Amino acid sequence: MPVETPHLRVDLGRLRRNVRHVAEQAASARIALRPHAKTHKSLEIARLQLASGAVGLTVATVGEAEAFVRGGCTDVFIAYPIWVDEGRAQRLRDLAEQARVAIGVDSVESAANGGRRLGGSGIEVLVEVDSGHHRTGVPPKDAGHVAKAAARVGLPVRGVFTFPGHGYARGAADEVVAAEATALRVARESVEAAGLDCRVVSGGSTPTLAASLGSAGASGDLGRVTELRPGVYVFGDAQQWELGTVDPDDIALTARATVVSHAGGRVVLDAGSKVLGADRAAYATGYGRILERPRARVVSLAEHHAVVEWPGRRPRLGSQVDVVPNHVCAAVNLADVLWVEEAGRLRAWDVAARGLNS
Amino acid sequence: MPVETPHLRVDLGRLRRNVRHVAEQAASARIALRPHAKTHKSLEIARLQLASGAVGLTVATVGEAEAFVRGGCTDVFIAYPIWVDEGRAQRLRDLAEQARVAIGVDSVESAANGGRRLGGSGIEVLVEVDSGHHRTGVPPKDAGHVAKAAARVGLPVRGVFTFPGHGYARGAADEVVAAEATALRVARESVEAAGLDCRVVSGGSTPTLAASLGSAGASGDLGRVTELRPGVYVFGDAQQWELGTVDPDDIALTARATVVSHAGGRVVLDAGSKVLGADRAAYATGYGRILERPRARVVSLAEHHAVVEWPGRRPRLGSQVDVVPNHVCAAVNLADVLWVEEAGRLRAWDVAARGLNS
Repeated sequence: MPVETPHLRVDLGRLRRNVRHVAEQAASARIALRPHAKTHKSLEIARLQLASGAVGLTVATVGEAEAFVRGGCTDVFIAYPIWVDEGRAQRLRDLAEQARVAIGVDSVESAANGGRRLGGSGIEVLVEVDSGHHRTGVPPKDAGHVAKAAARVGLPVRGVFTFPGHGYARGAADEVVAAEATALRVARESVEAAGLDCRVVSGGSTPTLAASLGSAGASGDLGRVTELRPGVYVFGDAQQWELGTVDPDDIALTARATVVSHAGGRVVLDAGSKVLGADRAAYATGYGRILERPRARVVSLAEHHAVVEWPGRRPRLGSQVDVVPNHVCAAVNLADVLWVEEAGRLRAWDVAARGLNS
Repeated sequence: MPVETPHLRVDLGRLRRNVRHVAEQAASARIALRPHAKTHKSLEIARLQLASGAVGLTVATVGEAEAFVRGGCTDVFIAYPIWVDEGRAQRLRDLAEQARVAIGVDSVESAANGGRRLGGSGIEVLVEVDSGHHRTGVPPKDAGHVAKAAARVGLPVRGVFTFPGHGYARGAADEVVAAEATALRVARESVEAAGLDCRVVSGGSTPTLAASLGSAGASGDLGRVTELRPGVYVFGDAQQWELGTVDPDDIALTARATVVSHAGGRVVLDAGSKVLGADRAAYATGYGRILERPRARVVSLAEHHAVVEWPGRRPRLGSQVDVVPNHVCAAVNLADVLWVEEAGRLRAWDVAARGLNS
């Protein structure tokens, strides 16, 4: 019996190619790759990444770290300024007995709090700096101050990191990568001026990946980034398609949906926001794209309905269509299973870290 | 050990009060209540609704129907124009052996397809009509045509239904309820003119609920709606708060979050779009509200970060805050568990139908 719609489907050939391609590029640029596993939340995909040379995984939460360590990963960086309460401290200490663990920190207070509960556990910290995205992270020149506070309370400092999220805008990549490199250089110098080593200088994202790797060989600022943490590159999504950073022929994940209604001449699919996610960036042209029909747009989205503007002859009722979600991390986090296709065969891969937000 | 953030928390007193209040209003208006369970996806909450007089449940998918029938519900309406493929036909036939089941239909083709696979199963249909939301549903005057097609292939017609989704706009409720009533009257007449009974005339939603119930006693069009299907009313959310249809003192579900960063003077919480959902309606003033601080706004949202504009003295790092999600159906569908609070005690209720999109 075929798998019923809506469901997420992965083209394993494309996925493997994406994993390998970025691994090779990072290797030839001599930059460590620590892919962000929040995108796929899958042990199988993590293993592909580690087998192709990733130095470890990046995750967003303690729960994700636990899932991947349970699955065999021995090196995780929780790239998030965790507030270490009593419960999380215990979980992190348990994790540190099984794997190499690092966490983010972006204030003297959270360093002090983390140190009180984790000092001596072997867990390292990276200081998060703001390279222009203005979410979390201290100003680069303050990195040393926070690093010193962490070191003082028994949290060894591994280095500095940033997320150049302002690279999610058309044509922004080169400028953002330059700003990121400058921020990370200033942060590194600040840590070193505080008398500490700064072994890891970590940045990167999928939309800025080509710019990072392209510049890495050059001398100067960009050569100082030692680690990249892209996530979305394994699948691609409609955001990357629209930013021009992923070719539609490389998109490895789609939501397979059925045409359920032609009401009012519309094309209505059974994959809604509970399958695709409701993300719609300012630059997005809709709520999702159709792989085989680039001019089509998902123009409105309800929980179980996608209304598609479909140029030309519309697909008949009951036929199936592959939708590219805007933001693949959100779509994957809605599914319990990815249906992975290779040579016409389907198998189910668990989304092992789904919903592990704490 | 306290439950770690971020997590969804339900105030059981408020939840019970919301369930009871709407049940009483529907009873006194002599309108059947068939709450939409896609909002809560919880067997415990379904039982509260059924115990307070709901005639059955509304659900969006076959998977949701299966979960609630397994949990003891004996009457489910899948208010969706399902395309009945082979797999779904088998599942629906199995369901119909355990419960009273109805599905939506909005075209002659889907009626014919459904009849071929479900005819004689005892499963009834309701014809979906478009009352102005322009998503699915036939024009009201065509309801009889579709109903006749269904009856011809062995799918007994229970009645007609609509979703007045255009009621999700400020100040729209009265006008939308009037349009809904007219559409349903025309649809009912169309079915009757086709020589069929139209026992159920079903509409409603949370933002239009007060208008529906307020008008129901009056003579004329509005008296002809026999069944209402609101969902969100059990919890409320920031959308309803901003539409003015739910009082903040009645909001029963929040995401408990920790302040993790003060970077740049901001208040950054650990509940992002993977907890709150990314919904942002045109009328929304942000990505979520703060229950105890009505002037605060979630001004930007990432997967694990909510940035809050917080008037006045900002909450300290490590403190906890209750965020009201914009769209509670989306938030619940991201969680495996609701933490239900009564008299200071917490217990976990499974989100039993989470992710059951097919």
